[in-house]
Parts: sequence; structure tokens; C-alpha cells
Amino acid sequence: MTPTHDNRWVTSVTLSPPSLGDNTADADRLEAALNKALGTRSVHMDPELLKQLPERLRAWNYRVTAVLFKDSGGAGILVHLTAADATDTLCGLAVDLGTTRVVLRIIDLLSGEHLGEAVFDNPQTAVGPDVLTRIHHVETPGGMDQLNRLIVEGINNHTQKLCSRCGISAETIHLVSIAGNTAMTHLLMGLNPRWMIRDPYIPVVNRPGVVKTAELGIGAHPAARALIFPNAGSYFGGDLIAGILYCDMDLREETAILVDVGTNAEVVLGNRNWMVACAGAAGPALEGGVTRMGTTAGPGVIDRIGIDPCSMAIDIHTIGDQPPRGICGSGVIDLAAALFRSSMIDIRGKFVPERCGDRLATQNGLAHLTIVPASQSATGKNLGITQADLDSLIRSKAAMYTILETITGSVGMQQHELGTFFVAGTFGAYIDPQSAITIGMIPDLPRDRYHSLGNSSLGGASRVLEDSRCFDRVNRIRDGITYMELNVNQDFMNRFSAAKFLPHTDTARFPSVAVPAGDCQSI
Amino acid sequence: MTPTHDNRWVTSVTLSPPSLGDNTADADRLEAALNKALGTRSVHMDPELLKQLPERLRAWNYRVTAVLFKDSGGAGILVHLTAADATDTLCGLAVDLGTTRVVLRIIDLLSGEHLGEAVFDNPQTAVGPDVLTRIHHVETPGGMDQLNRLIVEGINNHTQKLCSRCGISAETIHLVSIAGNTAMTHLLMGLNPRWMIRDPYIPVVNRPGVVKTAELGIGAHPAARALIFPNAGSYFGGDLIAGILYCDMDLREETAILVDVGTNAEVVLGNRNWMVACAGAAGPALEGGVTRMGTTAGPGVIDRIGIDPCSMAIDIHTIGDQPPRGICGSGVIDLAAALFRSSMIDIRGKFVPERCGDRLATQNGLAHLTIVPASQSATGKNLGITQADLDSLIRSKAAMYTILETITGSVGMQQHELGTFFVAGTFGAYIDPQSAITIGMIPDLPRDRYHSLGNSSLGGASRVLEDSRCFDRVNRIRDGITYMELNVNQDFMNRFSAAKFLPHTDTARFPSVAVPAGDCQSI
Repeated sequence: MTPTHDNRWVTSVTLSPPSLGDNTADADRLEAALNKALGTRSVHMDPELLKQLPERLRAWNYRVTAVLFKDSGGAGILVHLTAADATDTLCGLAVDLGTTRVVLRIIDLLSGEHLGEAVFDNPQTAVGPDVLTRIHHVETPGGMDQLNRLIVEGINNHTQKLCSRCGISAETIHLVSIAGNTAMTHLLMGLNPRWMIRDPYIPVVNRPGVVKTAELGIGAHPAARALIFPNAGSYFGGDLIAGILYCDMDLREETAILVDVGTNAEVVLGNRNWMVACAGAAGPALEGGVTRMGTTAGPGVIDRIGIDPCSMAIDIHTIGDQPPRGICGSGVIDLAAALFRSSMIDIRGKFVPERCGDRLATQNGLAHLTIVPASQSATGKNLGITQADLDSLIRSKAAMYTILETITGSVGMQQHELGTFFVAGTFGAYIDPQSAITIGMIPDLPRDRYHSLGNSSLGGASRVLEDSRCFDRVNRIRDGITYMELNVNQDFMNRFSAAKFLPHTDTARFPSVAVPAGDCQSI
Repeated sequence: MTPTHDNRWVTSVTLSPPSLGDNTADADRLEAALNKALGTRSVHMDPELLKQLPERLRAWNYRVTAVLFKDSGGAGILVHLTAADATDTLCGLAVDLGTTRVVLRIIDLLSGEHLGEAVFDNPQTAVGPDVLTRIHHVETPGGMDQLNRLIVEGINNHTQKLCSRCGISAETIHLVSIAGNTAMTHLLMGLNPRWMIRDPYIPVVNRPGVVKTAELGIGAHPAARALIFPNAGSYFGGDLIAGILYCDMDLREETAILVDVGTNAEVVLGNRNWMVACAGAAGPALEGGVTRMGTTAGPGVIDRIGIDPCSMAIDIHTIGDQPPRGICGSGVIDLAAALFRSSMIDIRGKFVPERCGDRLATQNGLAHLTIVPASQSATGKNLGITQADLDSLIRSKAAMYTILETITGSVGMQQHELGTFFVAGTFGAYIDPQSAITIGMIPDLPRDRYHSLGNSSLGGASRVLEDSRCFDRVNRIRDGITYMELNVNQDFMNRFSAAKFLPHTDTARFPSVAVPAGDCQSI
């Protein structure tokens, strides 16, 4: 869906000037013209805008350019008004409100052009790295305000800098679009998320809708409005809704699946007619699972690992080709796949001492395999993986596979019927599908069915600012999702147990994965 | 239409508590319950209310009482929330925003009971007594702010006092309803009315709708909302819309007419299917006419005058039976009718010296008839009427009659077909229809067709707070009015000239008015 000019949030209209025969008031005249041009039923105007309206309409000769949000009910909100022949820059700000990192993007509302981007660590990390720690922090005196202030100030500081870089003022930002998980969204809005982590896990709000940026404390034009993406529950946030919008799952005839492995693992399966979703954090099996693998991606972090099954030589790639200082999630998956292919671990994921050789040692009572010796690492310490890390990875990949099996099974689909498999997030951007298939984390589909979406949360937030038709899709997507609580019953646990092998106890599910024979010839 | 409990703005709902099987967020759960109970499509909640919602819903065991406004589009605004078993007083404030006087009324939103009323002079009178002076004042530096501050502070001070008298706090006021003429409404909202008095007479806004009282600066509950009555143009204000609502013209099968003689003379004719309106101020013939007659009603002001056509003795009645200090509008009409019946003035409204006798004198070159000699008046001066006053009254009554003739004629009606003739305002409350008929100001209808509405602006503003169905009627009434610019053409001027006689050149139109024969026997 390529946005055309007609689908921008900026509209120019010419009003017929008032006369004795048509003495409609200024505001009502403007509203009628906008209703006619945009199909709205009503257009809200702020008091400040009303006050300036008469002089402006007359100075502009009744030819105006309007920036306004509207919903499917036909209710418009006039956010900004300027002369039709003015050359003002009219901007939007898309925000990917991540638990770990926040990404900002400035968008020209008229052309849809991306003017600039900024990334920064979520300043709430100072309070705690994960959602749970932060939610617990709201119980401490002033904790709620502190968390709210940290993120609002973070967004404001970085928006200011980004605007300077783009050569614009923050006052040119009229529309804002914010996609984040449910907890981050609540903290930004100053809403206490405490009931989200207590049975039965209830957010304060599912559909925050459009709010004044001034009410959020976000520095933009004083009359600017923000669309805050809705959530489908405590564990299925606006970032995922943005992802669905970004990959157009809600418009597709064919059923697709979208997997986002960020702080949690969230999965949605569907097409233009239906969508089912579930989130990994809801299943106890995943707790501390997928989420804690490896180091955050960055310069010097190992993102690709290969092992020659004959020489057992380890080949690593680091981000930015810097000296290695850690292994990120995609690197850990690559490593496990390589260890399995070279028979250095068995189908249970346990080290095979006779294949590992000198690299295997015991550190603090734990079996540890060295990948980069201290002498070659940037940290001066051995970089490697312990049996405990591998056990955790096995649980994580088994949980992921079981969730995928459960969600497809819930609608009577076989995994091989999945036509398109979208992987979102930075994890999706770096993961090698072949490695993930080798360890049985994801189904053994033809590689071309896997599509990495990159930052689909930012992508979806941007789409709303580029194309007005996306506004209603956001709400339709949310309302159309059937959220499936992962029922961790005996059936789930049986599947989970079967998935705790490499690639699976049922190897027929992974025809492309050859079970290693333990020597280099068989590979 | 008697409001029933179902039509109050206060609704109690019980929410099903959340569970793992129904994890809808708190706000969305409340919205769904309200939508179901009230038929709304969506319910807006302020950020502050959202923040408090989770703890409150749980403390109140999911049983709540809500105060909310809603429109016909199904958009609700949640204004206040309390526990279902709370005994809080929930109040509304109805405001008749008059040019001369402002009336406040506190209404219990649950029972509809009127808890108290206050009247005060519009403090803008300090700037100028009439609308035009005040509109001109906005051109002086700070003039707009001054006028806005005067009325806002006036309302706040008197609301505070009224609340004290009623034994409530202003914070218990959640809904406000304001009916005033277009200029007064604009000044209250801080909207510059300058274009209202310049061709083609355009207000800033016709339908201000619902605004936050905090944005108006009106002291009530911080989340309170005000419905500001819409207008049908610069000269047909929300006070008249309130009057139409109050007399139920928009619900009646039978055609009625409503005449409001306040600062201007406004007339509306119609029934449930159609309404046409016009305003006297639009016609140059009325300028300074109806509006400037007599003294403002108050203690000591003469409101009734009779003259014995035989003895020529003048019988007066003063408000509060105080010593006389002036003659109010209704008194002037009574006086003119009595002078005409006793042949002290002729059919052109000119003094007849031989009938007036000693009472007639020349003061400052003007013929002056003494009603109360200086020795008996409270002011120590002669109270009476000059030929210029009478000439002015004749023009005013002729203008009023011509407007009535024009508006009925515009829909092909005869005046005698008018089933109900509502007279609004304090003028309507005091005027004696018999006297007004005698001078030919209003049509010669059976007296029982005349109904004085009293303060119909306050009445209409109150109705909206008492009965939620009235909210939509207000907008329907406005949209249903065809505003007729009084086209002062030759035809109008011919009618006007014919009406400048007592009661009319065509005496057949006033069969009940006997033309005086000049002696006491013939009366």
C-alpha cells in the first residue's frame, strides 16, 4: 500500500467567504469545508485555535492548510492551521518506545519523507533493565513519577537534538505516533501498571487513543496530538499492533505469522479475516528464557559463529569488526547450531567432551566452552558458553517452538502451511533462520518464507503518520485480535518436553536438518 | 416532558470484575459498561481520571456512579466517577448569561431539584450597558481580556456565594449549562466578537459545544464540562435556543411563536417540523427602539399604570410598593395604552393638549406629561413621559408588529392563526398583553393564547441539566432554524408605516380595541 498525497494528514481547503446570504460562523464554516473534503462528521478545535481563527481566515483569504487526525467514527481533531500558500514544515514524530531502546523518527507530513532518526537507551534502565523491575519500582515512594519523568525527559532531550540535526524546531511537530509495549506505554502516560503483573493481569487502558502531547509532557507544537497505539492486553502491546500494521497482515488474503522476540516473545498468526495472538511471558516456561540470552548487540559483539566440523576451527564475526567482547542472541543461536552440527553438543544440548577437547573446562563448578580465549578478547576474559547457558537456550527454543506449534494448532493449521513468517525486532534482523531451524527453534520452512521486518514497531508508528488510512487499521487490528492465554497444561508441557531436543524428538519435522553423525564426513 | 430518573446525567453501573478469561483493561471495561447502559459509542476519559481509575474500581468493588455528557453521535465524556454507594452531592450549574443581568441556578443532578439561585448585574456593564459598546471596547488595548475577566470573575464570585448558601462546595459542580446571546457567549469564551457587528455579521463560532470549565476559567470541579448553547447567528443567540427548548416549540404539533424582548427583540415561529426566526436588531427601524424604553425594573419602578377616562385620575403601581422613581418598559406600554384609551394621545401617539390639561408642559423645548409630580416621587423630580419618548415607543411597537407580520407572512400564516404566543424575558413577565394589544404592538389574539415564560433562557439551560434528552434537542433546534434576515425593503417600510398608528391604520385587525371617542362614556 503506497500512501498517496490524498492519504496524508494535511489538507488544503478553500472556504467560500461569508456573505449576508451565508452568515455561518468562522469555525462552523471551516468545519463544514473540512467535513466535505475529508468525510468527517465533526471537527474539534481547541479554544486557542478558535481565538485566532477569525483574523487568520481573513488574512489568509479563506484558503487554509489544516493538519488533523480523524477516526472512523468521523470525529476529526484540528491540530494545526496555516495559510494554504505557507511553506511551513509540517512534521510528525514516530516513536518506538522500547524497554531497552527508544527510536525516534521525524517525518515530513506532506511528502512522507523521513527527515531523521535518533536512537537512545531507555533512561528507565537506570531503575531496572526489565519491565518487571520497573513495575515493582512504582511501589516505592515517588517511583511512578520518577519512571514517567525519565522517559518523558529522554524523549524530549533526544527530540530536541534530532530536530536540531534536521534543521527544524520541535514546534513543527504536530502529530506524534507512539508504539510500545503495554507497560512502557503506561509509564509514559503516567498510568500505574501495578495490576498488569498481578492475576488476572489487567492494564489500566487498552485504547489510549489520541491525547494532547502537552498532557503527556512531550515537547512539540502546543496543540500537537499523539496517537498512542492500543494494546491487546498486558502482554500484547502497541509495538506488536504496529508490527501487524507494518507487515500488512490485516490486509493479506494468505495467513502469515509474525514473531517478535524482544523483551518478551510475542506471536500473532492471521490474515485479513482473523488474528490470534499469544505472548511468551504469559507462559512460566519462558520466564527468564528467550529474553536473557546473550549480550545486547553493539560494536565488538559476536553476531555470527561457524565451526568447521572437521578442523573444529571456530570462525567468528563481530559487529563493526571490533575485537570480540560478548555474544549476542543471534550469535548464541548460531553457536548452538554450529556446536550441534559439529557434534560438540548432543541432541539434549549437553557438551560432548570428546568432541569439545581443550576448549571445555570447568569454571566455578560449571562446564564452560571457550569460544574466544582471554588473550584475543576485548575484555581480557574468556568468552564462551556454559552448560547452564545452553540449558537455558534449549528451554527457550523449546518454549518458542511449542508456542508456535500451539498457536498454529489452535486454528487447525500445520506449521508447513505458513506462507510467510515475519520476524520482527533487532533479534529478527540478526538471526540466521538456518541456525534457528537447526536447533529447532522455528519450523523447517523454505528459507524464502522467512522475512526479517527490522524495527516493525517504528515502521508501524511511521505508517500512521504517512498514511491516514492506517489510523483506523490500528484500532481494527486491535479489536480483531483474539488473545490466547497460553494455557500451560499437561498437553503444553508434553509438547514442550518433546521440543527440548535438537532439533526435536520428532526429527521428521525437520527434514532439512541432518542429524550429525559425529564425524566430519557425514555433514 | 417530565424528566425521569432514566434521563439524568448520572448513571450507576456494575462492572463484571476482570478475570483470566476477560482481561479487558480497567478503562475499556468501564467504557463498555457505560456504552451498554447508555447507548454511547465511545466514552472519553481525562488523563487524571484514568490515573485514579484502577485503585478506585477495586476499592469500589467495580460498582460506580458516573456523571457524563453525551451527544447524539454517541460520543460520551466521562466527567466524574464515584462509588455507587457514595452519597456525594452531584450538582449542575445553569447560567442565564444576560447582557444586563446574569442568573445562576444550582441543580441536583440526581433529583433534578433546584437547590438555589443567584442574580447579579453583568459586571461588563462597567464597560458599557449594551452589547455594541462592549464589542467596540474589544478594540482598545486589553479590552478583550478585561471583558472576559469581568464576566468570568463575576460568575465565579457569585457561584461561590451561591454554593455557600446551598451548603455545598463548588467542587460538587460537574456539569454547567450556559445560555446567552451570541456576543455574551463569545466574551465568556474569550472569543473576539468584532466581526459580529461588521457586514456580513459573522460570529467566531455557532456551536461551541462542550468545553472544559477549567478552560473557561470557571470554578467548578476540575474535570467539569460546560455545554455552551449554540447560536443561529450574531443576532439569534443561545438564550433564544434555550427559550425554544424551554417552551417545547420543537416538540409541538401546533405552530407557536416565541417573542423575546430583552436587549434586542427576537422572534421565532414554528413547530416540530420547522422554525423560522428573525431578530429586531437586524432591522434598522428597531435600532435604539424597543430596547431603550423605560427604566430597568426594580423597587420603586412603576410597572402598572391606569387612567380613569372620566376623572383622568392616574393610578400607579410600583414594584415593592415603594415611592415611585421611574417607569419600566411594561409601565410605559401600560401608560401609552391608558393615554390612548383616555384620548390623551391620538392615533398618531401625539399628546392631545385639551385632554392632557395641566399635566402637559414644555420642558427643555419638549412636550412633557407629568405622571408623578416631583413632590410625590422618590427622586424629587417629575416623573413622566415626553413626546419624544412616545414617538420612540410608536416606532418600537410598529417595528415589533411589522416583524411579527413579516415572519407570519413569510410562511403564509395569518396572525390570528397563532395558537400560542410565548413571551419570554423579564419584559414578558411584566407586560400586560391587553395594553400591548391596545397600542397595536402584538396581534389582537384571545388573551389565553398569551403565555409568559419568565426567564426562558435560564429555564432552557436548566432543562439540559435535568434531562439528558435535551442535549441533542439543543443542537437539533439550532440546526432546524431558518434565520431570516429582515429585509428592510419598500414592502417592509410600507407595513411599518401602516403600523405607526394606534392600534393600526387597519383597525379591523384589532376588533377588541375600541377606538376612543374622546369622552368617558364611550369606553
